[in-house]
Amino acid sequence: MGDGMTDADLVPAAGNGLFDRRFFLRAGLAGGATLLSAKAPGVEREPWMNSPGVGLSDLGLPSDHEAHIKRTGINLQTGTTGAGVSRTPLEHLDGIITPSRLHFERHHSGIPQIDPDRHRLIVHGLVERPLSFDLDSLVRYPMTSNIHFLECSGNSYTLLDPSPPQRTCGELHGLVSVSEWGGVPLALLLEEAGLSADAKWIVAEGADAAVMSRSIPLDKALDDAIVALYQNGERLRPSNGYPMRLFLPGWEGNASVKWLRSIKVTAEPAMSREETSKYTDLQSDGRSLMFTFPMGVKSVITSPSYGFTLGARGIYQISGIAWSGAGKIARVEVSADGGQSWADAALDAHVLPMCVTRFRAAWRWDAGPAIIMSRAIDESGNIQPTRDVVREGRANEMFSYHVNAIQAWQVDQDGTITNVHA
Amino acid sequence: MGDGMTDADLVPAAGNGLFDRRFFLRAGLAGGATLLSAKAPGVEREPWMNSPGVGLSDLGLPSDHEAHIKRTGINLQTGTTGAGVSRTPLEHLDGIITPSRLHFERHHSGIPQIDPDRHRLIVHGLVERPLSFDLDSLVRYPMTSNIHFLECSGNSYTLLDPSPPQRTCGELHGLVSVSEWGGVPLALLLEEAGLSADAKWIVAEGADAAVMSRSIPLDKALDDAIVALYQNGERLRPSNGYPMRLFLPGWEGNASVKWLRSIKVTAEPAMSREETSKYTDLQSDGRSLMFTFPMGVKSVITSPSYGFTLGARGIYQISGIAWSGAGKIARVEVSADGGQSWADAALDAHVLPMCVTRFRAAWRWDAGPAIIMSRAIDESGNIQPTRDVVREGRANEMFSYHVNAIQAWQVDQDGTITNVHA
Repeated sequence: MGDGMTDADLVPAAGNGLFDRRFFLRAGLAGGATLLSAKAPGVEREPWMNSPGVGLSDLGLPSDHEAHIKRTGINLQTGTTGAGVSRTPLEHLDGIITPSRLHFERHHSGIPQIDPDRHRLIVHGLVERPLSFDLDSLVRYPMTSNIHFLECSGNSYTLLDPSPPQRTCGELHGLVSVSEWGGVPLALLLEEAGLSADAKWIVAEGADAAVMSRSIPLDKALDDAIVALYQNGERLRPSNGYPMRLFLPGWEGNASVKWLRSIKVTAEPAMSREETSKYTDLQSDGRSLMFTFPMGVKSVITSPSYGFTLGARGIYQISGIAWSGAGKIARVEVSADGGQSWADAALDAHVLPMCVTRFRAAWRWDAGPAIIMSRAIDESGNIQPTRDVVREGRANEMFSYHVNAIQAWQVDQDGTITNVHA
Repeated sequence: MGDGMTDADLVPAAGNGLFDRRFFLRAGLAGGATLLSAKAPGVEREPWMNSPGVGLSDLGLPSDHEAHIKRTGINLQTGTTGAGVSRTPLEHLDGIITPSRLHFERHHSGIPQIDPDRHRLIVHGLVERPLSFDLDSLVRYPMTSNIHFLECSGNSYTLLDPSPPQRTCGELHGLVSVSEWGGVPLALLLEEAGLSADAKWIVAEGADAAVMSRSIPLDKALDDAIVALYQNGERLRPSNGYPMRLFLPGWEGNASVKWLRSIKVTAEPAMSREETSKYTDLQSDGRSLMFTFPMGVKSVITSPSYGFTLGARGIYQISGIAWSGAGKIARVEVSADGGQSWADAALDAHVLPMCVTRFRAAWRWDAGPAIIMSRAIDESGNIQPTRDVVREGRANEMFSYHVNAIQAWQVDQDGTITNVHA
């Protein structure tokens, strides 16, 4: 209470026990500590202090006690050897960075085993000088690095299910991850090749067996697109496009073509399989929305969430992530009464454009029923929509892209948590 | 040349081929591309495109082609099983984040194998209520996360060697790494315990066999110190203090006590071994500077550096990292003529307080001799000193702490690079 406030000032900012973000950094809110006694654990030397520990190593590993933290919701498409997804276990992580070994995967025909010395990126089509780049030539170009989210546009589709599946946060929403992506601005390579006057699109092609291809408007290619060589400080992981991938900040992951081998400059989009039969949004009137690239404003509470069980009544920390393809997150609101009332969440210090922002709120659970949910607002004023709004105009399908609806978790009186539509 | 400049505008900003940072993002500067012909590699399907690739996995790994990227400069102290250092291979990394498996190590008696369920943090001494925290209680407190550097204060000591050792950038300067550190502000736990009026210091103690102990002024403990539970989104690595460590942004790494088991609030520092016989700076007049916590403003060129060999004459990208314990990096200058003239480097987008900032410069190497070096300036106006300035007043020792002098790399006419004092 060092700021002159008393307990009486701790009025909730929203219903069912939510405190305002200004009160978030208050020790008295938590109270999980135990009064220390002479016989308490930790007072005496623990056995691991009695002899020297494990020595130095050239590659560090996580603790054996954390061995259960793995990618989750692995889903291999029937009849394929390498098409499908694995997801980031969001419910076990905190902060914003995703460790590279836990970054989600979406492959259309597995991970090609590319010889980096033999791999080339060719830039051709409507250019003055068709060019070929190997790794050695690319690293001589100016580079840049930025921390951004990458989200598969199929993420969170189960929010449309009539009956909400009982799965973990990572299984439901783990097709989003965050890395520092470093590489060469694509604009430089296009400038080097020289664009023809009728250039309007680029077609990016991957060196996997699926030859994954996507058409990208030239404006984006010349804006903030990079040919990424680095992920979280080291060379890309094979599952993320080693030795190089396209990276398009804020846009659906599929367009950031992995194992990038060809950029063809064109006047029209290629109308490839992955932008016609897939990665389009079928509407109830039979039309399909195509080239819907930017990911919408979105958030999800990662803790507590399905699979957690609350213990004693008392203060809990609600923590989650928020992001938008349109820029920075401006505000995140949380509700503990199913959306009847909302309180502002506190945001961690790093609020970066087209990146995940970590939010937190203090919540007093009185061992009664509660429905907790979060709602993000980005700097452009976009507000994360409800499930009903997201469904408006869409064909009534079990699967859909670009689902950014509010996720609700129901906390029962016994502390168990389920996935609900609210 | 889309910005209306011509080649004639590309006057160097400093001697021996350094271009100004305003010209950094110019494609024409590099020119590593090859004109594409019909028979060029990458035009035809490569063999790895002819069959499905490797499938999904629950834990991703780096490419086999990158297996040589490991911690470097491993130095086990004679007669010990786990006291010494391993270093981050800075010359192989780009961006700012250090992958956790490559974070440097400095252990005083190895890595204790702690049972996280049994581990406790006790807060005692000059407090109203001595308290004990287990992991379950800590995660109910408000948390925060920030991307910060951690640097061992013994980093870069070889800059004082009379004869500069021929070693890689990581072997010389790799006792600095960057992670996102997440955890509970220490101020909250101290507030919960209630500080006595005569509280002035805390003594932090680790649960390793060395019982590493350091005294920290209370002001820092109440400012931005955290009890860190997360590193780069996941629980701490064992080599970085699993399950919890103290983290003091901007301060020498040794003070951020790992495997934190006890915080004792005191009126005076403990005068422990690691703040009296070690981690002090012996002066030539026989005095020792003690409790010299903040790390000085510093930078180093990571590429090109010792071990690289330049090929053909032409444009190369100079890239490196700069950091300061006093806040943000304001500016980085580079020289290609041994410090006679300096040009501003370009800074990557993320310039964060007490974090590494990535800088870059375009440099035209004409296959003549050159000495390249970088100099950082922080937002407080501190300027990275020369080797001579760092040596002023210090005892003439082979080893010293807090060495933040300018590193020089000499490029010979055949493209080989050596470590020199300049």
